[in-house]
Amino acid sequence: MEDDIRATLAQLEAARTLIVICHYDPDGDAIGTMLGLTWALRGMGKRVTPACRDGAPWPLDFLPGSAEVVTDLAGLEADTVVVVDCSDARRGGKLYKQAVELGVPIINIDHHVTNTRFGAVNLVRPDRVAAAEVVFELLGRMGFDFDLNTATCLLTGLVTDTRSFKTPNVDQRVLRAAITLMDIGVSLPEVVQMAMERKQFHDLAILGRALGDVRFEDGVAWSALSLEAWRATDGGAMSAAPRNFSTLLNSVEEAAVGVFFTEMANRRIDISMRSKPPVNLTVLFAEGAPLHGQGGGHPQASGAEIDGPLEAAISRLVPALKALVSAQT
Amino acid sequence: MEDDIRATLAQLEAARTLIVICHYDPDGDAIGTMLGLTWALRGMGKRVTPACRDGAPWPLDFLPGSAEVVTDLAGLEADTVVVVDCSDARRGGKLYKQAVELGVPIINIDHHVTNTRFGAVNLVRPDRVAAAEVVFELLGRMGFDFDLNTATCLLTGLVTDTRSFKTPNVDQRVLRAAITLMDIGVSLPEVVQMAMERKQFHDLAILGRALGDVRFEDGVAWSALSLEAWRATDGGAMSAAPRNFSTLLNSVEEAAVGVFFTEMANRRIDISMRSKPPVNLTVLFAEGAPLHGQGGGHPQASGAEIDGPLEAAISRLVPALKALVSAQT
Repeated sequence: MEDDIRATLAQLEAARTLIVICHYDPDGDAIGTMLGLTWALRGMGKRVTPACRDGAPWPLDFLPGSAEVVTDLAGLEADTVVVVDCSDARRGGKLYKQAVELGVPIINIDHHVTNTRFGAVNLVRPDRVAAAEVVFELLGRMGFDFDLNTATCLLTGLVTDTRSFKTPNVDQRVLRAAITLMDIGVSLPEVVQMAMERKQFHDLAILGRALGDVRFEDGVAWSALSLEAWRATDGGAMSAAPRNFSTLLNSVEEAAVGVFFTEMANRRIDISMRSKPPVNLTVLFAEGAPLHGQGGGHPQASGAEIDGPLEAAISRLVPALKALVSAQT
Repeated sequence: MEDDIRATLAQLEAARTLIVICHYDPDGDAIGTMLGLTWALRGMGKRVTPACRDGAPWPLDFLPGSAEVVTDLAGLEADTVVVVDCSDARRGGKLYKQAVELGVPIINIDHHVTNTRFGAVNLVRPDRVAAAEVVFELLGRMGFDFDLNTATCLLTGLVTDTRSFKTPNVDQRVLRAAITLMDIGVSLPEVVQMAMERKQFHDLAILGRALGDVRFEDGVAWSALSLEAWRATDGGAMSAAPRNFSTLLNSVEEAAVGVFFTEMANRRIDISMRSKPPVNLTVLFAEGAPLHGQGGGHPQASGAEIDGPLEAAISRLVPALKALVSAQT
């Protein structure tokens, strides 16, 4: 690890013109880390361009520098590329391919345990709660004198990836990092309000439709969103939210499994499942099991895509999940 | 303030047998502060009984000492009563009346700006985020060596009253208090999981029904829960949750006002309203205004109770709110 830190520091210190890329469908840690590192490196006198396939979308567009995020590397020059918060190179999308074509060293800074170490230099810290925390510590090692822009962006990464300090990996070290950034002058309540508390009407309407007929039987909590129900809200873009609904369903204390069914535009059914130990969802994908060859995942978090119609999919899978719960608990 | 702190310290130090009361319909700060102070005073060799009209309800019944909370003071003796987290004496309910009958000094420890200073000694700190923070600092002044039980209860108060550090009053001091309590050995993630993240199926079902037909027009976001919809969930007790739904509706970025209508068992309609500045809801209660004599509140948070049926109440109030938004923004 110490070798990785030193190699990263050496590469960053030698760089003069950098591109900092984060993953597509960016969250607060992706944009916050990308922009935080951008401001810090600029503070060291370097030329830096932040880049993300999807720009800096609402509600993250309050962050300083968000208007400068490029969505294409065509015509850009750099002697170094930094990729942040990407567990593998594909998460960069088209921009990663463009970065490779530049033929310059790629520094991979991340906190995902599944990181593939795709960079020339790799600083991967699964023991850190956010990519922002990895960069915060790295800048500390460089003796960087944090400015307000850098601190605002990094605090946003820290706060959003921990859902405001609620994830199981939060300890005193994380709170101390937040305090250090707040001491620079960042308002934690303002970051929380701008990055987390603001909602769009569409999100609330989708949540209402998604939970409108939530059900619970025999340890299984389930709900569904039909294409008609989704279109009836206001035709806004289907956000990533429905994929979190299985987590919400599994948060029901009485539930051993939470499953959410989404009818997609092609009428196929997306299934997102979460379970509490000891329920192991992976057995659903075994030879001869109900979802064999139609998806996969982890013991407590899996997904699949099956044929519709929606009601048939529900009638097929819910009994299988009830049987799973009955057999495993 | 320093006089209040000294008077409180003197009274607590002289006490030998205490009753610590928190408000009815208790939240995490009420129960956490009551039990935290109970454990601390016991650690100083005093006899202490925690008391709340409603006991220590789910999900707070994980806290150490929750099984010892009495719901009636009959037959109890004490030389001192402490009332925590109550803005006025009525918040103690029957237990406050019983406490007065004991004829002993009452210490009032709170953080609400509206506190009526009903005690013989009053330690009221509106500049603190939770009653738990007031007690945390008080115990620090007493040189108390925090134990795990006390720290667990006080951290629960701090975390729940700030919605996991999300309220506008959170600053570095609050995070430092959390770190101090975690240093005793309390797990912040465990407190968050037990006190905040656990849900009951009924809550999710009610949320789904309440948002099932959420609407937004002309700056007003509204939704309603009929008695039939509520009964269709599972007949669980109507929790305090619906009153928070107007806050959820007002969190919609496009909304200037959020209003939630609840049909009560007597078929009257409870109206909960929240607004963003500059929209001032109090004008709705003025002479000749739509809600005159039917409720009241603050510029950004008001409530009323009007005649049903539900659809008529909605048809009457929503246009008035649209006009209000139009006139004031």
